[in-house]
Amino acid sequence: VDILNKQVLLASWARGLPQASDFRFAEQVLSPCKQGHVIIKNHYLSVDPAQKGWMSKAQNYSNAALGEPMKALAVGEVIESSLPEYKAGDFVSGWFGWQQYAHVDADAIDRKINPATGPIQNAIGLLGIVGLTAYIALKDVINPRPGQTILVSTAAGGVGSIVGQLAKRWGCRVIGITGSDEKLGRCLNEFGYNAAFNYKKEGWQEALKAACPEGIDGYFDMAGGWISDGVVELLNARSVHVQVGTAAVASWDPTPQAPRRERLLLVKEITHQGFVIFNHASRFDEASRYLAQCLANKELVFREQVLDGLESAPQALESLYQGKNNGKILIRLT
Amino acid sequence: VDILNKQVLLASWARGLPQASDFRFAEQVLSPCKQGHVIIKNHYLSVDPAQKGWMSKAQNYSNAALGEPMKALAVGEVIESSLPEYKAGDFVSGWFGWQQYAHVDADAIDRKINPATGPIQNAIGLLGIVGLTAYIALKDVINPRPGQTILVSTAAGGVGSIVGQLAKRWGCRVIGITGSDEKLGRCLNEFGYNAAFNYKKEGWQEALKAACPEGIDGYFDMAGGWISDGVVELLNARSVHVQVGTAAVASWDPTPQAPRRERLLLVKEITHQGFVIFNHASRFDEASRYLAQCLANKELVFREQVLDGLESAPQALESLYQGKNNGKILIRLT
Repeated sequence: VDILNKQVLLASWARGLPQASDFRFAEQVLSPCKQGHVIIKNHYLSVDPAQKGWMSKAQNYSNAALGEPMKALAVGEVIESSLPEYKAGDFVSGWFGWQQYAHVDADAIDRKINPATGPIQNAIGLLGIVGLTAYIALKDVINPRPGQTILVSTAAGGVGSIVGQLAKRWGCRVIGITGSDEKLGRCLNEFGYNAAFNYKKEGWQEALKAACPEGIDGYFDMAGGWISDGVVELLNARSVHVQVGTAAVASWDPTPQAPRRERLLLVKEITHQGFVIFNHASRFDEASRYLAQCLANKELVFREQVLDGLESAPQALESLYQGKNNGKILIRLT
Repeated sequence: VDILNKQVLLASWARGLPQASDFRFAEQVLSPCKQGHVIIKNHYLSVDPAQKGWMSKAQNYSNAALGEPMKALAVGEVIESSLPEYKAGDFVSGWFGWQQYAHVDADAIDRKINPATGPIQNAIGLLGIVGLTAYIALKDVINPRPGQTILVSTAAGGVGSIVGQLAKRWGCRVIGITGSDEKLGRCLNEFGYNAAFNYKKEGWQEALKAACPEGIDGYFDMAGGWISDGVVELLNARSVHVQVGTAAVASWDPTPQAPRRERLLLVKEITHQGFVIFNHASRFDEASRYLAQCLANKELVFREQVLDGLESAPQALESLYQGKNNGKILIRLT
């Protein structure tokens, strides 16, 4: 019998923040497994801040396509394979999209997963790009040293919560910026931040400044925009500002205006550097090993918010940009 | 008899570009040499783009003081010394200010100069911060590799002309941005640029783009501002933009607006980094040796424009910002 594959298609490029209405649902009969391909039944789909960029018509490192299943990481089970390295029953993670079944070639598969070592969804959570981004951008770009002050924006999110904990483990003073008092509490009580500030509260910038009497040595920035404009003055000479996301900027089309920053960079010799996790594959092994060890020793708190059913994906992404998530969002399909 | 010391004092903080009227002249009787000090008779004074920053009330790495001789590098002869390491007749370079005589402690002296090895003014020219800035910011921050395309703004100036020649020697394709057709000609005919563009000509950005079919791998930027806004889109993935000056920005008070740049940095993993030569003293030896060797072998063209008399200093600085200079500007006092 034919298998019906339910899909969430990208119906329109994002205008500003992603909205559930940018997507539509479709059903398609799954075609037989082509030569060089495998068919994967997705178990968990990832909902990531980076998807906003992929939905953008503007220049990006990795665009989604209109009318196709929304580009997304996922973890699932191989149900049919024409590739010798994968067989039915294998669990794999990769670029399987927001759909029930993915019919993909080997390039779409990131790696095999051993379900005996832990929940398979870790592959798109702490041991996936979330944890890898936190570890590699913090260690390789900021390179924090004990005693330094590290600032993290979107501090309670999937990546931010790991950055905060890693920086703390590595001997730093860690300051967070987040968007609700509830998240602020989690920063302080769960993730070990030394201080945290709610950017929706009047006077947060002054309070943050007062909490950084020795300035900021490294800024792990997933917000950008007006949130960063308010704190870059605190960056120390020779500090590093790594740009991992730009969640605080609703739209890049047309390019918004900002305070001109080159003089500040110059006089303090600040390094402002972009980071895209997919360019750092050579570092995945070290990072994965470190994070898996922490996970095994229960040394890292990692919050997941699991929503059920493909139908919940579009709204989950919209909510993420409203700051309503509670850690890393996963969509469970089985 | 008393020695009268003619001085150029900073009379008011720069508002926008430096103007001759920001300075006033004064005469002061030179006080006797204090313990721990030396008295230096200046032979050449330096006129540098960086002085605009030093004249600014805004945050800077190194401010001048109102009512004091304008902060400047100079080269001169020790005429009286209470320090064992310097004696009358020694030539030295350092922070001696725009004045005929400097009464300074050891911290103000950069180094002794051997007049037998070449013209003493080289110490504030090719072998001074001009050449050091070119060599160290290019080599250490951009780290150009053969075959790469390097863009230089203020390409025909003291620093820019050396950057262009060094990048060419190191196997790069070098593109310059400059402000007159006469300078453009010098870029092509004297400094070895592969192509150069006059930013005062309509369509220069399109022409520059056409000359960089493979994008730009390193941007040695002394202009910033609108000039850089027009070219940063050409920066390649993982390219380096080193900010060495901001000559194209007339005023930083209030902070001007600019196209917001963090998304471009992010998706291309661009590094945008400030550079202040005085933080790189540990690299001066290597750079000086290399440049002195080039000079001895006549392998570098270095243009100097020598003006006579202390009185010419204020106008020389004003003209520098109008792009009227013809290489490195020196004021000759003897």
